[in-house]
Amino acid sequence: MKYALSLVLLLHFSFSNAQENLVKYVKPIIGTEKMGHTYPGATVPFGAVQLSPETDTISYELNGKYNGEVYKYCAGYKYEDKTIVGFSHTHLNGTGHSDLGDFLVMPTQGKLQLNPGTASNPKGGYRYAFSHSNEIAEAGYYKVKLDDDNIIAEMTATTRVGMHQYTFPKSDESHIILDLMAGIYNYDEKNVWTYVRVVNDTLITGYRQTNGWARARTVYFAMSFSKPFVNYGQENYDGKQPYRGFWRKFDQTKNFPEIAGKKIRMYFDFKTAEAEKIKIQFALSSVSQGNALENMQAEIKGWDFEKVKTEAQKSWNKELNKIKIDAPEDVKVNFYTAMYHTFINPTVYTDVNGQYKGLDQESYVAKGFVNYSTFSLWDTYRALHPFFNIIQPKRNNDMVKSMMAHYNQSALHMLPIWSHYSNDNWCMSGYHSVSVIADAILKGVYDGDPNEALNACVTTAKHRDYEGIGSYMDLGFIPAEKSGISVSNTLEYAYDDWCIAQLAKKLNKQDIYDEFIKRSDNWKNNYNSATGFMQPKLANGNFKDKFDSMSTEGQGFIEGNSWNYSFFVPHNPTELIAKMGGKKAFASRLDTLFTMHLPDSFFAHTEDITREGIIGGYVHGNEPAHHVAYFYNWTDQPWKTQAQVRKILKMQYKPTPDGLGGNDDCGQMSAWYIFSSLGFYPVAPGSNEYAIGSPLVNNAVLTLENGKTFTVEVINQKDANVYVQKILLNGKTLPTFFINHSDITAGSKLTFYMGSKPKK
Amino acid sequence: MKYALSLVLLLHFSFSNAQENLVKYVKPIIGTEKMGHTYPGATVPFGAVQLSPETDTISYELNGKYNGEVYKYCAGYKYEDKTIVGFSHTHLNGTGHSDLGDFLVMPTQGKLQLNPGTASNPKGGYRYAFSHSNEIAEAGYYKVKLDDDNIIAEMTATTRVGMHQYTFPKSDESHIILDLMAGIYNYDEKNVWTYVRVVNDTLITGYRQTNGWARARTVYFAMSFSKPFVNYGQENYDGKQPYRGFWRKFDQTKNFPEIAGKKIRMYFDFKTAEAEKIKIQFALSSVSQGNALENMQAEIKGWDFEKVKTEAQKSWNKELNKIKIDAPEDVKVNFYTAMYHTFINPTVYTDVNGQYKGLDQESYVAKGFVNYSTFSLWDTYRALHPFFNIIQPKRNNDMVKSMMAHYNQSALHMLPIWSHYSNDNWCMSGYHSVSVIADAILKGVYDGDPNEALNACVTTAKHRDYEGIGSYMDLGFIPAEKSGISVSNTLEYAYDDWCIAQLAKKLNKQDIYDEFIKRSDNWKNNYNSATGFMQPKLANGNFKDKFDSMSTEGQGFIEGNSWNYSFFVPHNPTELIAKMGGKKAFASRLDTLFTMHLPDSFFAHTEDITREGIIGGYVHGNEPAHHVAYFYNWTDQPWKTQAQVRKILKMQYKPTPDGLGGNDDCGQMSAWYIFSSLGFYPVAPGSNEYAIGSPLVNNAVLTLENGKTFTVEVINQKDANVYVQKILLNGKTLPTFFINHSDITAGSKLTFYMGSKPKK
Repeated sequence: MKYALSLVLLLHFSFSNAQENLVKYVKPIIGTEKMGHTYPGATVPFGAVQLSPETDTISYELNGKYNGEVYKYCAGYKYEDKTIVGFSHTHLNGTGHSDLGDFLVMPTQGKLQLNPGTASNPKGGYRYAFSHSNEIAEAGYYKVKLDDDNIIAEMTATTRVGMHQYTFPKSDESHIILDLMAGIYNYDEKNVWTYVRVVNDTLITGYRQTNGWARARTVYFAMSFSKPFVNYGQENYDGKQPYRGFWRKFDQTKNFPEIAGKKIRMYFDFKTAEAEKIKIQFALSSVSQGNALENMQAEIKGWDFEKVKTEAQKSWNKELNKIKIDAPEDVKVNFYTAMYHTFINPTVYTDVNGQYKGLDQESYVAKGFVNYSTFSLWDTYRALHPFFNIIQPKRNNDMVKSMMAHYNQSALHMLPIWSHYSNDNWCMSGYHSVSVIADAILKGVYDGDPNEALNACVTTAKHRDYEGIGSYMDLGFIPAEKSGISVSNTLEYAYDDWCIAQLAKKLNKQDIYDEFIKRSDNWKNNYNSATGFMQPKLANGNFKDKFDSMSTEGQGFIEGNSWNYSFFVPHNPTELIAKMGGKKAFASRLDTLFTMHLPDSFFAHTEDITREGIIGGYVHGNEPAHHVAYFYNWTDQPWKTQAQVRKILKMQYKPTPDGLGGNDDCGQMSAWYIFSSLGFYPVAPGSNEYAIGSPLVNNAVLTLENGKTFTVEVINQKDANVYVQKILLNGKTLPTFFINHSDITAGSKLTFYMGSKPKK
Repeated sequence: MKYALSLVLLLHFSFSNAQENLVKYVKPIIGTEKMGHTYPGATVPFGAVQLSPETDTISYELNGKYNGEVYKYCAGYKYEDKTIVGFSHTHLNGTGHSDLGDFLVMPTQGKLQLNPGTASNPKGGYRYAFSHSNEIAEAGYYKVKLDDDNIIAEMTATTRVGMHQYTFPKSDESHIILDLMAGIYNYDEKNVWTYVRVVNDTLITGYRQTNGWARARTVYFAMSFSKPFVNYGQENYDGKQPYRGFWRKFDQTKNFPEIAGKKIRMYFDFKTAEAEKIKIQFALSSVSQGNALENMQAEIKGWDFEKVKTEAQKSWNKELNKIKIDAPEDVKVNFYTAMYHTFINPTVYTDVNGQYKGLDQESYVAKGFVNYSTFSLWDTYRALHPFFNIIQPKRNNDMVKSMMAHYNQSALHMLPIWSHYSNDNWCMSGYHSVSVIADAILKGVYDGDPNEALNACVTTAKHRDYEGIGSYMDLGFIPAEKSGISVSNTLEYAYDDWCIAQLAKKLNKQDIYDEFIKRSDNWKNNYNSATGFMQPKLANGNFKDKFDSMSTEGQGFIEGNSWNYSFFVPHNPTELIAKMGGKKAFASRLDTLFTMHLPDSFFAHTEDITREGIIGGYVHGNEPAHHVAYFYNWTDQPWKTQAQVRKILKMQYKPTPDGLGGNDDCGQMSAWYIFSSLGFYPVAPGSNEYAIGSPLVNNAVLTLENGKTFTVEVINQKDANVYVQKILLNGKTLPTFFINHSDITAGSKLTFYMGSKPKK
């Protein structure tokens, strides 16, 4: 009997261990240098807490002027830097705009210094120098030695709790700083209000309200110490405070447990023995201090840091094992780091009890789903959400539900543009929620009411007051006089409208289909047959003069010039090709895009891109042309897709800190990598079709949530063999360069035969 | 059958109507001129909403300096003023410090002006001139005509909802202004954050966060209009806002439904027919917008303003009928207006669903009680809460529970000093919660756990870091070097400690009794036998030099000089008398107090008092000597109590706008009036004893919650007959000048026989 039980346990154990240790391939440091804007710290898949070092917290303003450097610190950490100013609990992954950085914690020793110091003089504040040789960044774990006090800082996380472990040298003057005014993208009025309650000598709770990218963002917290602090205190940097009134009765600077103000830094004093570890659990909530505490108590029992770290890495392994690949080591590193980056955003926004703060700043209970925040939809509708429809359909279902909740809570009656901590920050063009929703419904992933979802899409798309939609509806384009990004918006609306039309067709809403399929043709209104380019048009119907196909600035585009954006008709390449002179001319034009030389002036006025993020004139570091390499499939020269995709995979993704050629953009860059290295890509989400490229892996097995597996097998895989010679789907020759979503979900095998020469 | 039913209804109706219409005696305008600091607007008993006009909202600072005028506007309205700037929803009754004034609403016509204008140029803004001849102020109802646009403004209220009714002349340009940055006691940094959501064309919700007297006060609201607005908009006065980011996509000034910022004024446009009424329901909550809406829907159905007004006045009548008096008209006006003022504060702080925001800024459900806020305890422990123990015991029980909840939510582990909208504003000296708690328990009013309450009292009284308590415990007094109000604090702590001792005795906690009865003697440490005065003492044990018995400033007192404060031993007059040279010398000293001349310099440095608030050197307009007129009862000359009490009743309370000689102080001045006009007063709450004075009424019947009645009958009542000749309690001669609380609750009859000469 005992033996039988042992056997069962053993079998179970073996089965669990069938999961490979894929965490070892994840290098969170990739993308932390130059343009990637990733962070190296600890988080779990879709975790609400991202506990990561800040190498600086610079201000939006420098000497009263806008500081362009501020966007370097989107993720708080720059690999190039030599000092760490602290470890904060919220970070965006790969965005081009800065925000977050809540609750900066820093261990120090010796004389208490509450100011952060500077990179050039870290010893003038609580900052420390560090070196990469003393740094470890893994999925769910980060470690660094702080020079010269030799404090070892380690961190890990659960979904809603960050765990710190600081190993101190012996000292009567060990401190832990909690800087409640630090933040990424800081400026004078950023901190709206902060409240802290010292419950006892190991627990504090409170909240911090900031504005910024979100107008009204409140994060509640509970912070628990493994050892009682001896003293604590605060400095308030609010300046003159006539309102303090009778609060002057207290010395609020020391051991005073009810702290409030706009700009507060706290400290906690300890006496430490040699190598003594002080640990911190730091839980977040969008709803209340009580919920933060409940999150903490639910997710971490006791003070076993190693156990929490092991669990964090186990949760990463579980997600990473959904795709097992055979590939060279550097591809594996790129691939699993890309998977890691795709599974960071959106982030869980419900507490363990199901509550979250809605867009209307009221508390809700998410019934039957997990509410998510951090939707960078302009980026992620392209490949990240389509990737989720394959590998994370349950989560994507919940993400669509979160978008619908956002819509229902919106006084504007709009789906999210960029959903951000109970706010919409309205970043970028289009209304790409509708793409994500249509794609999820058309692929059978959404189990909510599809008609309600369609209604939300239509209402959003008819919001005349928003970003030129009124003109767009009346004229079929947005006059250049009315918007600096009139062309981007028109092109993206047209694609989004096509998504709505597809959804309407599926739901047999012929009138909506007719209306939106017509709108989806609006790209034609910005197409100038005389030049062959998408161009800004004036209200009088004439194209704006002084057109420059190379420039972004003042040309009606955002994050892309006309050379890139003129290809932005993902939903109707056939007509675009016809307009552009037919397949041959079109392919030749694509050739030019990938080989042309971009002048330096291009970079001066284009956000978030450097020469490293481009190939010829093709800008991979920004998103608008992410589908373009696949357009050769619509010409008679699909092998050029294969060549270009393989080139992008190799040039734009490297297993080094500076390995990303552009912002990871909440996983969109990484999702492109995963699709493309598997050999296919969703050119137009909202369609169930994937265009074939050139796989990078030798073999890949995708384990789907429906229990089936989809296998990609690559015969004759070599660096030189970028060209597809033959493709079999379940053993049968694939007649086109396209597969369908149902081919994947049915559990198929796609076999590529590669060669060094184009198969013409 | 039909006839029988009618009869039953008729009988029921008659029974209900047995209640007298006492509302007609209530003149909310009393105290609005000069020092009373009352407001004339609409509220219901203990209502969470106080909807009342502001005649100005002046700033704490004027030209960068402290503006002494700010305290004129504690209640927002000064009878002396000629203009009204708007109607806001929260007001303090009779305080000496300014705060509140949330959500200022104003109807206007013609050209939209979003600035408030000035008193000298009301037409330069949304302000209007008005005259008292066009003004009606009743319990639960306020009406005024706004010159020159002839808009009639009327308001009434339920517990949590203010109802406005504006009668407009015909115009295509009628507006309702909602000023979300206005406030009483305003200054630059007062507004922390404001959020407004326009749900539809008749409903908006939101919240406003301010600091000030409370450090972190958030009031949520829901505002409903009886008629859809045609347009709406806002101006934001925050100044430079780098954080606005992509919100620039919207024209937020007009018809934009998601509004946020620090300083916001909104407007709503209407077209009105001649004499068209636009009504508003404005509900408040401390917890959420949803709760505010729920409060609105629960308390007001439909748009019948008259019905809401009738209900409001019915609720006042119900409370006022608890004491029926026979007295001359002007006494009735004073008496019922005093009752009205005693039933305004504290205010209900739970929503209809039982939720409220606790001191720790977290949401709670008040289980089995109503949570109250606005506890001006330094004032109200003296007579207001003792009055509640007689006439509102159920509410006072809930108030003690509210104080215990405050204690349990306090990170400082302290009972409230001045409980104020989920904050403590820490105003004034002492820790008088303990008096209210002890009095309620000793009088059998509190049904919570008395031992838990005693523990809270003891913990509060041993909070060494608070206001010199540490020194007080170590030395028996507070060194003058350590505090500007060292003597006030020591004297008041000593009295409070006596209350704790009485409670400990009742609960058989001998050790606590011993400790605190000893502490209750600490008043002796500030008594200088050489001068016969309470004086500030230095740490070395010497009295501070330059003592001035007439001055308050720099003498260790607050709101009182040594002449008044030297009598502050309410719990031990016997020993005080002995110290001061025996009964005769003591009485003679009281004579001097009531006849001496206070120099002008006294007023220069004493808060909240003018010559009208004094009799000789006795300051009735402030509280510290409120018990002193009754001290003659401990000498052999009780008739002097009778004479002085009658004099104070006549001189300090008049049925005119300037009728209150000092701040009403959340009802304490009024409670003094009620007790004294009934013929007795609680000299030392915590004792069950009341000292006899000289009744002003002819007759009074108090209907108690236990179903019994307590009757005061006065024989030979005349203005000249101020002296008590004989007192019968239930027909038997009262042997002393004291009655007991149990005499009242048992349902007794107290008969005074009055005469024009002292009965020696």
